[in-house]
Amino acid sequence: MAQELVIGIDVGGQTTKCGVVDARGTVLAQTVIRSDTHTAVEPFIADLAEALKRIIVEAKAEGLIRGIGVGAPNGNYYTGNIENAVNLTWGGTRVIEFAKLLSEAMNGIPVSLTNDANAAAMGEMTYGAARGMKNFIMITLGTGVGSGIVIDGKMVYGHDGFAGELGHTCAVRHNGRPCNCGKTGCLETYCSAIGMARTAREWLEMSDEPSMLRSLDKITSKDIYDAAKEGDALSLKLFDYTGRILGEKLADFIEFSAPEAIVLFGGLARSKEFLTEPITKAMNENVLPLWRGKVKLVYSQLKESDAAILGASALAWEL
Amino acid sequence: MAQELVIGIDVGGQTTKCGVVDARGTVLAQTVIRSDTHTAVEPFIADLAEALKRIIVEAKAEGLIRGIGVGAPNGNYYTGNIENAVNLTWGGTRVIEFAKLLSEAMNGIPVSLTNDANAAAMGEMTYGAARGMKNFIMITLGTGVGSGIVIDGKMVYGHDGFAGELGHTCAVRHNGRPCNCGKTGCLETYCSAIGMARTAREWLEMSDEPSMLRSLDKITSKDIYDAAKEGDALSLKLFDYTGRILGEKLADFIEFSAPEAIVLFGGLARSKEFLTEPITKAMNENVLPLWRGKVKLVYSQLKESDAAILGASALAWEL
Repeated sequence: MAQELVIGIDVGGQTTKCGVVDARGTVLAQTVIRSDTHTAVEPFIADLAEALKRIIVEAKAEGLIRGIGVGAPNGNYYTGNIENAVNLTWGGTRVIEFAKLLSEAMNGIPVSLTNDANAAAMGEMTYGAARGMKNFIMITLGTGVGSGIVIDGKMVYGHDGFAGELGHTCAVRHNGRPCNCGKTGCLETYCSAIGMARTAREWLEMSDEPSMLRSLDKITSKDIYDAAKEGDALSLKLFDYTGRILGEKLADFIEFSAPEAIVLFGGLARSKEFLTEPITKAMNENVLPLWRGKVKLVYSQLKESDAAILGASALAWEL
Repeated sequence: MAQELVIGIDVGGQTTKCGVVDARGTVLAQTVIRSDTHTAVEPFIADLAEALKRIIVEAKAEGLIRGIGVGAPNGNYYTGNIENAVNLTWGGTRVIEFAKLLSEAMNGIPVSLTNDANAAAMGEMTYGAARGMKNFIMITLGTGVGSGIVIDGKMVYGHDGFAGELGHTCAVRHNGRPCNCGKTGCLETYCSAIGMARTAREWLEMSDEPSMLRSLDKITSKDIYDAAKEGDALSLKLFDYTGRILGEKLADFIEFSAPEAIVLFGGLARSKEFLTEPITKAMNENVLPLWRGKVKLVYSQLKESDAAILGASALAWEL
């Protein structure tokens, strides 16, 4: 008998990546479609189903697909719905029965859905740096700061399915930066790629300190990384500051669930040579003595290009 | 056949309470022994076993005890050990195989052990305000601030058995109060009974504002409660301040595990008439909009005198 396979789908604001995946985490076939060409979900589901059928044929996986896992913004694991996803052109303030619609379009193949950060954590647990770990916290450092929490080998979904919004815990209590969520001082406003660029702009305006960043029109976290590589002092300090704020909050998270490790993932996590030290230092300074030096800080081991698909596919193995 | 029974034991610094409990949470017989008359654990275990045998006879429970649950400072659920319990005269910096020793002294009756705040959460889930809840966070507001976290119907113990130290998450980042744990700014230094009395002393020294508290030699949280009842303005403000700091941190905890409810327990929680409003306000102002107004704030429903025994006994039903 041929082996069972699953499909992983990562729904993003602009594009949706999907792939056929085997039990070892090999992506056998994959494709990308646009997410933002429709204002209703039905035609998007039709596009997606067509793309999936194409890669199923390409991977010679007809009849072998055990399930489909979806990582999507504001995805609710309990209901299979996408709720109030304002960043999706067909999302808005509606409740979309995404898992149900996709399963119908795929001849009843079961579909499981969660948010993108939870999917990333599942991927890391199934194929990556957290393999074999039963207690860890995944922090995704991308445009925003997302999180997926695993306790006792299980994803934490909470009472309503939306647990794990660590990017919106408070990093700066007074006079904190406004966040897209409507609050101020959220961790995400300091430690996302966008947050770090925001710090850079603030600092450049507040002082005359020379920096390679001054010559740039628009600063990205990649620019800061490149400048730090060249020894730019201000850029190096930006990593220290960003890492310290993240480390301080990680200490709080450790006191909550006593994880074996923190797993970092996403664009900013690629700058580990500059982030590891300040994060580790602040984490250990701010955590109770009993955990000092004991909680590992590890980085995603999934191939960047496959990570989103793998994460979502990991969900499907549980179906 | 007669019903099965369990024993609950609450080990405190000065005294240890124990009782025989039935499945409905009725304490059939109970007693209290001193915890602080020995410097080694063996004679304490001997005293305890003798006391237990006495209440077993009193409750006519010979042969009916299914298990023994223990709540103890620094108790580790995974190992059954009490580790580094400096507040116990026979504790110190040792690792004490408490569950094993007690089981041996009780002819092999199985013993399960956890820390006191976790035991309180188990008690509330089994017999009290959290009955039927699968996701809640218990905060104990006593001499310190303890916590027990329940996710998906299970206590969170974490990788090492010590999860749920929310009293030592950071409430005040800069210039925070020194805590017994060696850190500064811990939630416990502001929102425990002792923390609140500390705020009172600070405020009295910092201003000339008249207050009934000025006439007191030593201020306790009970004094502040009594004064607030009489309309003492400073005491009322003390509750607002303490409640706000707690509410701000509760928002962070909600973003972690998306609980159905926060359950408050302990001496300070008796002041609910003054605490509920500032806590609820700060919690809702600081949490993501999706949880605003949705997470319940409830108070322990266990009879104060029985609560410690009931909490520990709840552990034993799982044996």
